[in-house]
Amino acid sequence: MGGKKLDNTSSNGNGTNADDNNNNNSNNGAPPPATVRQSPVINLDRGDPSVFEPYWKKNGGKCTITISGHESLSYFSDPHSVCWYMEPELQEAIRRVHRIVGNARTEGYHVVVGTGSTVLFQAALYALSSSSAAVAQPMKVVCAAPYYSQYKEQVELLQSRLYEWGGDAKTYDDEDKTAPFIEVVTSPNNPDGSLREAMVANKTENGGKLIHDLAYYWPNYTPITRPADNDIMLFTLTKCTGHAGSRIGWALVKDVAVAQKMTSFMQITTIGVSKDSQLQAAKILQVVADDCESKAGAFGYGGDDADRTFFGECRKVMAGRWEKLREVVKGKDVFGLPKYPKRYCNFSGRYFQPAPAFGWLECKEGCDASALMKANNVLTRGGETFGASNRYTRITMIGREEEFDCFLERISGIHCVDEDKDKDKEGEEGLVVILDNNGDAHRGNGDSNGHGNWLHEVK
Amino acid sequence: MGGKKLDNTSSNGNGTNADDNNNNNSNNGAPPPATVRQSPVINLDRGDPSVFEPYWKKNGGKCTITISGHESLSYFSDPHSVCWYMEPELQEAIRRVHRIVGNARTEGYHVVVGTGSTVLFQAALYALSSSSAAVAQPMKVVCAAPYYSQYKEQVELLQSRLYEWGGDAKTYDDEDKTAPFIEVVTSPNNPDGSLREAMVANKTENGGKLIHDLAYYWPNYTPITRPADNDIMLFTLTKCTGHAGSRIGWALVKDVAVAQKMTSFMQITTIGVSKDSQLQAAKILQVVADDCESKAGAFGYGGDDADRTFFGECRKVMAGRWEKLREVVKGKDVFGLPKYPKRYCNFSGRYFQPAPAFGWLECKEGCDASALMKANNVLTRGGETFGASNRYTRITMIGREEEFDCFLERISGIHCVDEDKDKDKEGEEGLVVILDNNGDAHRGNGDSNGHGNWLHEVK
Repeated sequence: MGGKKLDNTSSNGNGTNADDNNNNNSNNGAPPPATVRQSPVINLDRGDPSVFEPYWKKNGGKCTITISGHESLSYFSDPHSVCWYMEPELQEAIRRVHRIVGNARTEGYHVVVGTGSTVLFQAALYALSSSSAAVAQPMKVVCAAPYYSQYKEQVELLQSRLYEWGGDAKTYDDEDKTAPFIEVVTSPNNPDGSLREAMVANKTENGGKLIHDLAYYWPNYTPITRPADNDIMLFTLTKCTGHAGSRIGWALVKDVAVAQKMTSFMQITTIGVSKDSQLQAAKILQVVADDCESKAGAFGYGGDDADRTFFGECRKVMAGRWEKLREVVKGKDVFGLPKYPKRYCNFSGRYFQPAPAFGWLECKEGCDASALMKANNVLTRGGETFGASNRYTRITMIGREEEFDCFLERISGIHCVDEDKDKDKEGEEGLVVILDNNGDAHRGNGDSNGHGNWLHEVK
Repeated sequence: MGGKKLDNTSSNGNGTNADDNNNNNSNNGAPPPATVRQSPVINLDRGDPSVFEPYWKKNGGKCTITISGHESLSYFSDPHSVCWYMEPELQEAIRRVHRIVGNARTEGYHVVVGTGSTVLFQAALYALSSSSAAVAQPMKVVCAAPYYSQYKEQVELLQSRLYEWGGDAKTYDDEDKTAPFIEVVTSPNNPDGSLREAMVANKTENGGKLIHDLAYYWPNYTPITRPADNDIMLFTLTKCTGHAGSRIGWALVKDVAVAQKMTSFMQITTIGVSKDSQLQAAKILQVVADDCESKAGAFGYGGDDADRTFFGECRKVMAGRWEKLREVVKGKDVFGLPKYPKRYCNFSGRYFQPAPAFGWLECKEGCDASALMKANNVLTRGGETFGASNRYTRITMIGREEEFDCFLERISGIHCVDEDKDKDKEGEEGLVVILDNNGDAHRGNGDSNGHGNWLHEVK
């Protein structure tokens, strides 16, 4: 571990955060605030899936591929597929993994590959909105809060006349009930891990249009309760196996016209997707599928067998982290975490509690959660980014082990005292957060939102 | 060769064309017109760079890389670069190749990598237009006709409020001379191979903003006369080495703020670029650079030495094709081709004539060039797509050898007779195109544009 390594994780001078890249990162590559002692900055803001690295360091050899200089010399891969730039091996591997895991139907679906699933979200927006030729107004894109912070950014990037951000689906109430709109359903949800159904789209007369972002619907995070069969389902290798750098995502699309339009978007914007990464992704997914089948025989998963698969191994790691986090939080008077009921996982053949990729940390009323974390040199993503209160902040659960442990150590030192009970300690009303780790106590300035945000900005 | 192979090249049921993907492909996967006999369809519409395949089949072994399953597990590559997702090896290779070839300055430039250069064009549009916060109107994007057919499509895709297509730069004359705009300069130009300078941007008071698309400014196509040093220069592996499937492009950007905004665009839309392909591209470019240096010693290129490099070998192939094409066209009374003067190439150490990636075929007045080609079962891209007359059509010069030869054979059979001299042959005025290959003579219907287009649509 060591300070150097941890420092490296936030040494990007551009203030860059991904998956999940957030330009508003308050770190911006600046050194830690002067008032905080030398504890290194831990970046738990971004969704880099380093948690899977130990598994792949041990098992990655099976996925090795060689690429020669006479390959990848054509844009084209499969003239028989709607998605003409998709390598047939990748399509086959995607369908096979879904069949084995049981998390999504693939029969009757078209596969569209993207440079990650992010671009496929945009391709889907284009496909759903550009066909509404008669609509004078941009289509509203809504998602129930707390929603993934990047949807808004992606929707608004080019100030399109085709679609625009409509905010929280729960409060969406368009005057014209027949106006078409798009609802994004993220399940399990980023940031809070909840399982979701459409809030609006199914309730209105014209039905609206749905995009299901199922990036986290894999048994390393959550019980697989049924094969999803939504109109447009987005998945990404990043969250499935952890290969973020390969930038491979895919959409399962029911309507061929929508799949064609999505492909057309990919064609116009990037003329396809890296073949090298497609072949690498195909290999990784086949190895994962082989592993599942060899452990339990085809379609006979359950209990111990499933635990020894890639998904089972990773679930154990995730569950272990959640257990440690809950243990630390349980003892604090300042934090809360969502509770997830145990559910039966068809793939694993057992009941278990979800262990989402992100922790949705709640602080006491009046506390700015991400500012509190920042005062401890822990970068997280504040609730407002997700359309929620700043009492919440999102912390990654899929980062490096040493960072996660260091984070636990830090927050275990945070206490919150009620000033009404300890008036002699401070002169103002509200909560005081004591940072035991470095011995400093910080007090934020009350701001205009009436919450009296604590440590809203650490100078 | 064989009909089967040729048929395959157009068997994509989506009517897909790339580089250079054109949704308006009139083929659309349909069988050849019934009136035309069984000659297989040749697709010379798209810019798939198959011409380099023989070279890489022979030399590709040196570029082999292996990728293991524990790689590509992070979004991040280089925290010290503006372009945080760029592999350091790739940046190094890009700078080295430009230094050796002498086609672009890299000192003082930031490198931004993209999934091909297409997406970097969009990133540049975003970077240049989104900073004009005070501008109420979308920025016009102009390019001198004939212009690359896909710029318009990319600009208009999402109906952005940031920018909009402004058409031919030669006729661009905005009422408000101070309104900022963007001019795209493609040099050598796609489709016509001409070397270009800005038409408008440098002449107006506010200077406009420039994007230089230098995809074809490599010594396999054109003499390298000086290192380009424009503000934003776009390059792509697709046209440099032929690795279209790797989807790697790069921008050399002078202004750090523009580079940051372009990176931000890439971050929001695709969260970076395939690492697997970046590493493969780095290897390929290093092998090309090694090859150049070993043939002539560092920076001592010239004559025979340069001819034996990758670029020299490929130039010979390109020059050979152009020679054959000019030979066939010379004997015809219906076609014309642009003439390019010989220029001294600093890299090659000799004078030579450009051998562009596309042939810009001109037909006699009154002839619809792409329709004429289509009647011969040769798919090309008609002049209108490039903002030019339908007397022109673009044919790829970088496709497969067997297709190219087959194309030459077909067009060598086309003759054009002047009806005024041969009134007894036909009853109407105008030109008659005789298709010797299959023995049929076609006549088009005169249409409203007054050109009496020949073979505008073959039923």
